[in-house]
Parts: sequence; C-alpha cells; structure tokens
Amino acid sequence: MLTALGGSVATPPDGVTAEVVVVPNFDALRALPAGAVKGKILVFNHPFDKELAAVGNGGAAYGNGVVYRGLAPIVGEAAGAVAVLVRSVGGAEYRLPHTGMTIYRAGVPKIPAAAVTAEDADLLANLAAQGPVRMHLTLTTQTLPDAQSYNVIADWKGTEHPEQVVIVSGHLDSWDLATGAIDDGAGVAVSMQAIHLLKELGIHPRRTVRFVAWMAEEEGSQGAAAYVADHRQQMADHVGALESDLGAGHPTGIAYAGKPELGKWLRPVAYVLDGIGAPLVEGSGDTGEDISGLAAGGVPTFAPIQDSRFYFNYHHTAADTFDKVDPRELNENAAIMAVLAYALADSPAPVPR
Amino acid sequence: MLTALGGSVATPPDGVTAEVVVVPNFDALRALPAGAVKGKILVFNHPFDKELAAVGNGGAAYGNGVVYRGLAPIVGEAAGAVAVLVRSVGGAEYRLPHTGMTIYRAGVPKIPAAAVTAEDADLLANLAAQGPVRMHLTLTTQTLPDAQSYNVIADWKGTEHPEQVVIVSGHLDSWDLATGAIDDGAGVAVSMQAIHLLKELGIHPRRTVRFVAWMAEEEGSQGAAAYVADHRQQMADHVGALESDLGAGHPTGIAYAGKPELGKWLRPVAYVLDGIGAPLVEGSGDTGEDISGLAAGGVPTFAPIQDSRFYFNYHHTAADTFDKVDPRELNENAAIMAVLAYALADSPAPVPR
Repeated sequence: MLTALGGSVATPPDGVTAEVVVVPNFDALRALPAGAVKGKILVFNHPFDKELAAVGNGGAAYGNGVVYRGLAPIVGEAAGAVAVLVRSVGGAEYRLPHTGMTIYRAGVPKIPAAAVTAEDADLLANLAAQGPVRMHLTLTTQTLPDAQSYNVIADWKGTEHPEQVVIVSGHLDSWDLATGAIDDGAGVAVSMQAIHLLKELGIHPRRTVRFVAWMAEEEGSQGAAAYVADHRQQMADHVGALESDLGAGHPTGIAYAGKPELGKWLRPVAYVLDGIGAPLVEGSGDTGEDISGLAAGGVPTFAPIQDSRFYFNYHHTAADTFDKVDPRELNENAAIMAVLAYALADSPAPVPR
Repeated sequence: MLTALGGSVATPPDGVTAEVVVVPNFDALRALPAGAVKGKILVFNHPFDKELAAVGNGGAAYGNGVVYRGLAPIVGEAAGAVAVLVRSVGGAEYRLPHTGMTIYRAGVPKIPAAAVTAEDADLLANLAAQGPVRMHLTLTTQTLPDAQSYNVIADWKGTEHPEQVVIVSGHLDSWDLATGAIDDGAGVAVSMQAIHLLKELGIHPRRTVRFVAWMAEEEGSQGAAAYVADHRQQMADHVGALESDLGAGHPTGIAYAGKPELGKWLRPVAYVLDGIGAPLVEGSGDTGEDISGLAAGGVPTFAPIQDSRFYFNYHHTAADTFDKVDPRELNENAAIMAVLAYALADSPAPVPR
C-alpha cells in the first residue's frame, strides 16, 4: 500500500516497471557500486525508531526518518533511479501509508516518489535480499496550480498597548488522508480556547492577543511566510508567538526559542502550570514551523512540550481523526496557551529578546 | 473507509443514497418505532470491548461483536433497510476496515453489507445524533461461482496403529486484504513444525500423525465439512484433532473439547509445557472451527490457548502480515502442537472419549 507524497509527480500513464534496490539509509546507498541504482526503483527502508519515541522523543525519531521522505527524490534522481519509495515515517504497524512533503530541486528532473507502509517496505527488503525483484509502479498524483488561500487572523485588542502583539496559533491545513484532528485541528482549537478562557475569567491583558490559524503549513509554510513579509516593519511589536503543532498529548511544560534569559522569565509561569503536570521549561530549536520566521525576526517563540509517544502513530495518516484527541489533555494544552499568552500579554515589562 | 463483507452483494451500479440510522446494538434497534429503518442505511455501531481483550479475553470480545457482522444483513432486511454497515470488529483504532463472513438467509432478499472503520462508525453516530445524515454507498463486490479447491493432507504413518489418526491442523485460506499471516498461516506453520520436531527428535509415534491445511474455513468451513463427510466411517479411528487458529501469540496451555476426563489425561502433558509457560488445561466449547465437525463426531479436540490480547487488532485486516508473528511465540505454539500430538499418538491407551 502506498501514498503519493506531497509534491510528487505522476508516473507515465502505463506506470514504471523496474527492478527495486532497497537500502536502509543514505550511507548504504553511498556504499553501492557506481550505477547500481541506474534505471531502478530506489527504496529507502529506514525504520522509525520506536524506542526513541516510546521514551518520549517522538520528534527526534520523526526527524531521523523524515529526511528520507524529504530528500529521496533528489538523492534518487542523482543516483539514476526512475522512482523512489520511502518507508512511512511513523511508529504504528497497521499497514498505514503516511504522507508528507517531499522536496525537488529546481532544474533537476522530478522522479515519482511515494511512501509505502512499514510492512510493505519490509516485504520489499526481504524479497530483494533473496533475489531480483521487479515492481510495477503507477502513481496518478497531480500538482494543481497554486490557489488563493488565507491565514485566519483575529485580534483581541490589548487595553494599554494594542499595537503590541502576542500570537497564539496552530495551522489550518492538513493532509487529505484524514481530517487533521491532531495535525493540527488541536493546535487551532487550543489557540482559540486560550482567548476564550481569558475572557471567561474576566482577564483582559495590556497587549493584543492575536489568534492565527496559519494556512499551507504542510505545503511549505507559505501562510507564515506571507505573514512575516506583511509584518516586517512590526517585528519589534511582536512580543511573543506561540504555536501548538504536535498534537494534543499531555503537555509537560513550555519550550522556548530565544535568549537564555527567557528560561528564567518563564520560571514563575511554569510554576502556575505545576497543577496540570506541566512545570518544565526547555530551550528548543523548534517551537513550530509557522513561527520559525518570526523567531528568525527576533520574536521570542514558544510551544507546549507535548507527549509525543503516540503522535507519530497517527500523524499524516488516515488515522488522524478526532477520536485521537483526549479532551482532558486538550484542555491541558489550552491551559498552557492561556497562561503563557496572559503572561506575555500582561507582564509590565516585555519578555527578554 | 469500508470493506465489502464476505458474501455481500453489490449496490445498484449508481449506488444507494439514503438516510442513515445508527444503533449500538440489537436492543436499540428493537426499541425504535416501527418503520424507523424503512428505506434507510442501517449502521450497527457496536464497539469492540477493548478492556475485555486487554485482560486476555479477546475471543469473547470478538464473539460479542461478530454477531453484528454476521447477522446484520438478515436483521437489517427484516427492518426494511436498503443496506447495512457494521463497525469493524477489532481493537485497534488505526482506520482499519475489517472484513469477514456475513450471513444471508435463503429466500430473503440480499441487501448490501459492509464494514466501516471504528472511526467512521463513530463519525456517522456523532453526525446522526445532530440531525439527518444522508449517505451515498457504492459497493462493487461480487460473488463468483464456487471453484474446486482442496484440503492439503499429509500422513506420517504410525508404527503400530497406522489406521489410528491424530490431526494437527490450521487453515490454508485467508482474506484478501492481507496475507493471512496470523489467520492462519501461523496455524499451518506450527502444524507442519510439530511433525518436523518429532522427526528431528527421532520420535516416531505408534499412531499416524496427519497434517491438514483446511481449505475454505473463512467461507464456511467447506473443506472441514468435506473431510468429515469423507471420513464418516473412520471417526472411531480419529484419536484426537488439534487446530491452531488464533494467531501465534504466547500460549498458556491447552484447551480441550470432550469428556471432562480429558482434563485429567492432559495434566501430565501440561506439566511438560510448564517450561514454556504453558501449563494450563481448560475445557472449552471452541477448539477451532475446522475441527468442530470432528468434535461433533465424538473426536476429542484440542487447541493451544493463545494470547488473544492483540490478535483482534490485526485479524481480518490489511495489517495481518508476517511481521506480526513473533518467532519465539510461534515456536512455543509449535512445541504445544508437537508435545500434544506425540502424547495423543503414542500413549499406550487412546485418550478418553
């Protein structure tokens, strides 16, 4: 079972028939004799590190695997492959093909690229180890022209400094296999809920809290890029930006990207979150794809540290549905967004930057 | 996502469009006003009892759910439904549609029947609770004419009583969604391995050990029925029959169907299995679909008691693939088949019947 990857191209109408070459990783590909992949279908069978995910480092396990999904078409074309397949980047072995973005380089021919399930990748590897395996691959994927789409933005104006902005955000788009409940309906929901909670509590902060549902994160964060381009002159007024884009698992604290002083500033905020089991404060290189442009512009950025043990079992598959969201854990994430947004938007002095 | 059930009929070429009526069980259907289902698509949303499976009673959890898959077309037709859908009978929520046999009654019109994933059943239930839901259903299933097929039988003749037979067996057919590794490739493998192990050990029993790979278990055990019909005069010579048809999970002992004295007879056999954690002896109504006809003919029947906590996560789905078989646990099941086959085939006096 396979899924065309985002950005892939179709095979010729009658498909591609070729021998498969299976490698576990880039090193193994480099170790092959010259021409070994020429005219072949190249299969990257890099297993998802389930043990790394099981101990809580789901993001790292994903990062180790997703490079194959991302780079396979470029690396495969350079090796002379006629198509590439990658093992799905996820931890559940329920014959689930994952999807996701893949990368082509301008000026280099695009070869078809798809993901196969973990089971089917193992089958190909086992068969290929026994002798030559020929595969017929038909991909009917198409890339439509870009269409106009929009970030959804709502401002709750601050009482003293309406020009100063704290962003709470998730992304609006998702993959077509399912409904995108955990990626990233949950992030959009907890961002809306953060403002709702503050209003319910009768707390109206000094600065503006801006809800943003980013468009086209999965396609390459075009919505976020457009936002940064539109607000280049207002970067100094962006006091902080939060994104939730790792599902709705129980949060254990707050990750931040910015000056080390941010950690000290966050300490009293984290104490407030002790009651829901979320007192950790962690410097991180990654607080969310959509707010990485703001981070590069000097804006302190933040994200809940979410339980990622199970997220990549469902992420980018047909199983990313609403039942995967635990209401209690979703509420905990909303609490983090609300407490942190309040702290950022109402602290007398702005956060260190 | 749905799967046509075994034996289902196609919708008209342009499908069926109708309102859905969702019920959790037969009682809820009976409680509806007369005519409530007339012209509708009836959905049985009976959840698999995951807690029952988690504590080791996977078979009971399956039994509680599979009646909906089996009887839905008859019950639905009687209620006036134009089609029926059943929630997939399994414990994993990875958007996996299950398949399986469903039953029609002679002389009653056949209505289309299919299984939907747990997630999609919940979605239908949630939507229907909010207001009328219309569904368009297209099923292209077809039932082909019966074709000739065969049980695969191999005899290892006994040294003293070659006419007396002990059967070791699994079934050869499986559903088309996957490869049938756990249902029932594993059962066929451990049955072959039982004879192989005895030969390796240089043990040649007094009675014949007969390997049988039953055909068409999933379709209605036609292979087993043909065997019984062909051997009606030899029932007394069938000393015992073993089947493994609950996957390849760790076995905890032996289930038997027959006289209570069998339990006592099995005790010393079970002691031998203590070393692999399989010392239990349990009277059971169900030792395997294919050997139930032999049991009805007075033949003592046996099965490994297998760990069923995870079996129904994969059973009858696309995820029933070879990686789900743990070699160590497969070996444990082979050991049970070998030890028990030896005991039955070599004991000086036949087993009680």
